[in-house]
Amino acid sequence: MKKIKAALLGYGTVGQGIHEVLHEHQERLRILLGKEVEIVAILVQNPSKHKNLPENIVVTTNFEEIITLPELDVVFEAIVGEEPALSYLTHALDKGVHVITANKMMFAKHAKSLLEKARENDVKIGFEATTAGGTPVIRTIEQLLQVNRVEKIEAILNGTSNYILTAMSERSIDFKTALAEAKEKGYAEADPTNDIDGTDAFNKLMILSQLIFNDQPAWHKVEKTGIKDLTSTDIQAAQENNKKYKHIAVIYKEGDQLKAEVSPLLLSSSHPLYNIDGVDNAIAITSNIVGTITLIGPGAGKLPTASAMVEDLVAIFQHEPENHSIHQYKDQAAV
Amino acid sequence: MKKIKAALLGYGTVGQGIHEVLHEHQERLRILLGKEVEIVAILVQNPSKHKNLPENIVVTTNFEEIITLPELDVVFEAIVGEEPALSYLTHALDKGVHVITANKMMFAKHAKSLLEKARENDVKIGFEATTAGGTPVIRTIEQLLQVNRVEKIEAILNGTSNYILTAMSERSIDFKTALAEAKEKGYAEADPTNDIDGTDAFNKLMILSQLIFNDQPAWHKVEKTGIKDLTSTDIQAAQENNKKYKHIAVIYKEGDQLKAEVSPLLLSSSHPLYNIDGVDNAIAITSNIVGTITLIGPGAGKLPTASAMVEDLVAIFQHEPENHSIHQYKDQAAV
Repeated sequence: MKKIKAALLGYGTVGQGIHEVLHEHQERLRILLGKEVEIVAILVQNPSKHKNLPENIVVTTNFEEIITLPELDVVFEAIVGEEPALSYLTHALDKGVHVITANKMMFAKHAKSLLEKARENDVKIGFEATTAGGTPVIRTIEQLLQVNRVEKIEAILNGTSNYILTAMSERSIDFKTALAEAKEKGYAEADPTNDIDGTDAFNKLMILSQLIFNDQPAWHKVEKTGIKDLTSTDIQAAQENNKKYKHIAVIYKEGDQLKAEVSPLLLSSSHPLYNIDGVDNAIAITSNIVGTITLIGPGAGKLPTASAMVEDLVAIFQHEPENHSIHQYKDQAAV
Repeated sequence: MKKIKAALLGYGTVGQGIHEVLHEHQERLRILLGKEVEIVAILVQNPSKHKNLPENIVVTTNFEEIITLPELDVVFEAIVGEEPALSYLTHALDKGVHVITANKMMFAKHAKSLLEKARENDVKIGFEATTAGGTPVIRTIEQLLQVNRVEKIEAILNGTSNYILTAMSERSIDFKTALAEAKEKGYAEADPTNDIDGTDAFNKLMILSQLIFNDQPAWHKVEKTGIKDLTSTDIQAAQENNKKYKHIAVIYKEGDQLKAEVSPLLLSSSHPLYNIDGVDNAIAITSNIVGTITLIGPGAGKLPTASAMVEDLVAIFQHEPENHSIHQYKDQAAV
């Protein structure tokens, strides 16, 4: 049976989640794709930590060793930060290798050029996991709303902030205590700056902007306010008026101008995002024919993120076998 | 340019909505499909009522006139009730014509045999509009959660019931007044029996069951309770305890057994469906990898329903041109 050869770039929580999901659902993937999916290489930071990985997997700190493997079909990228992820993915696309990424910081900035490069090389980029974790918002917009034109997005895109606001509101604790609790439960990173200052939600909003409008607003013109200046007094005053603060990312078009904002907003109970509590993400998508559809789901986590990335894999390879062989024949003919 | 030739069966609100959406988004469809979509025939009850339709469209009460048209590619079915819809669609599938239906009553009962017939004839059935109107729950399960196995559905599937319960709760009116109001606003039909006794939600649940489990529970074993026996006193008592009655459809597997129930349930404010008010539908989908994703959106209405059906059209024809011509060659070879 033919195999799909995959490499993992990064072997932290998400990388291990992908490995686990691919391994446990091998039979299902075989049914869906008519092929096995084999992990042939893993890019790690410290190989001595991963001595228990199967011997037939190349475990290396050197990306060159991976990208030069023969017949590599796809790389899963779960590295944090812009570089070296961007260089790796650029290289992969140039080699005609499909890319599936969870890297929102990198993709927010480079979605446009990477998507163009993918088109030029006749390969795909799966980026469901960059935005709202396991909630399939990217492919809902891309595949289920094709005749519809999305006009506006209003969303809760950062689970850490939403957890903190929920805890402050439900249990009348202050920001510091709620943040400490979020860290303890694994809902906030050791350095939570990007989550609580709105950067993470902003990055995801820019990815949605690129997808929907094929464009982004000038970053410096987007108001970006985090949640860290909200006091217990603010939260309680809101509650007394039956309102809640939620950290909301909005984008829509006004004439030719993209308008975007990321900030804490006071919502009344009739608002579709009022009741989204805890670490969940939620995205209200308003389109010109169907109206508003809201998706709610896990915004992060090992298995939800891995789920999004493996579903991306299926989407890429399900309609591709014929195209791929046509492409190979073309290459041979060119030689 | 090649054309996709479509017929509309039924020209009530939904049929007219499809016509409107196809007409207004012709350019978009051309970009997506590389083809124009042309309505070549409409099945109506009373042709004299529709004299203003373009002359190149066959307007008839006779289905035979439609199904014998040369090169018909797809029928949109928006008729109410089991027959003659079932016979028409069976006939269409036998002729190798794709089918897109909004008919939940018919499809709940005959999904299995129609889907089998479609497979035999190498055509597709789009049925997004049968369940939760414009909310893309069918294709989320079918296309976005393929590696995932759906384990449980918990849903509000009837907008009329939800509107009535919301009105009774928010404005302390009784069932009769709320129903009258729903009729006045067009949210309830002249005969609302199927909506308020749970039949409509049950039908949609059976369609979801067929899709997810490729099976349905024995219909007579499913508890089906409507909302008409809920009194203002019940609703107010719930409210005093910060709870709400919602009309909930549930299905899951216990061992080998499918368990389903449709009934009013008392939900606490932490429940994901607690805050779904008015005519919206909502579906909480629990899968084995990603966890729970909830979709909320319009459960009915001219444009949301038409949106779902036209998006189905795109899904059917987007990956089909090559297959279709292969199929045609095969047929010719067989002759």
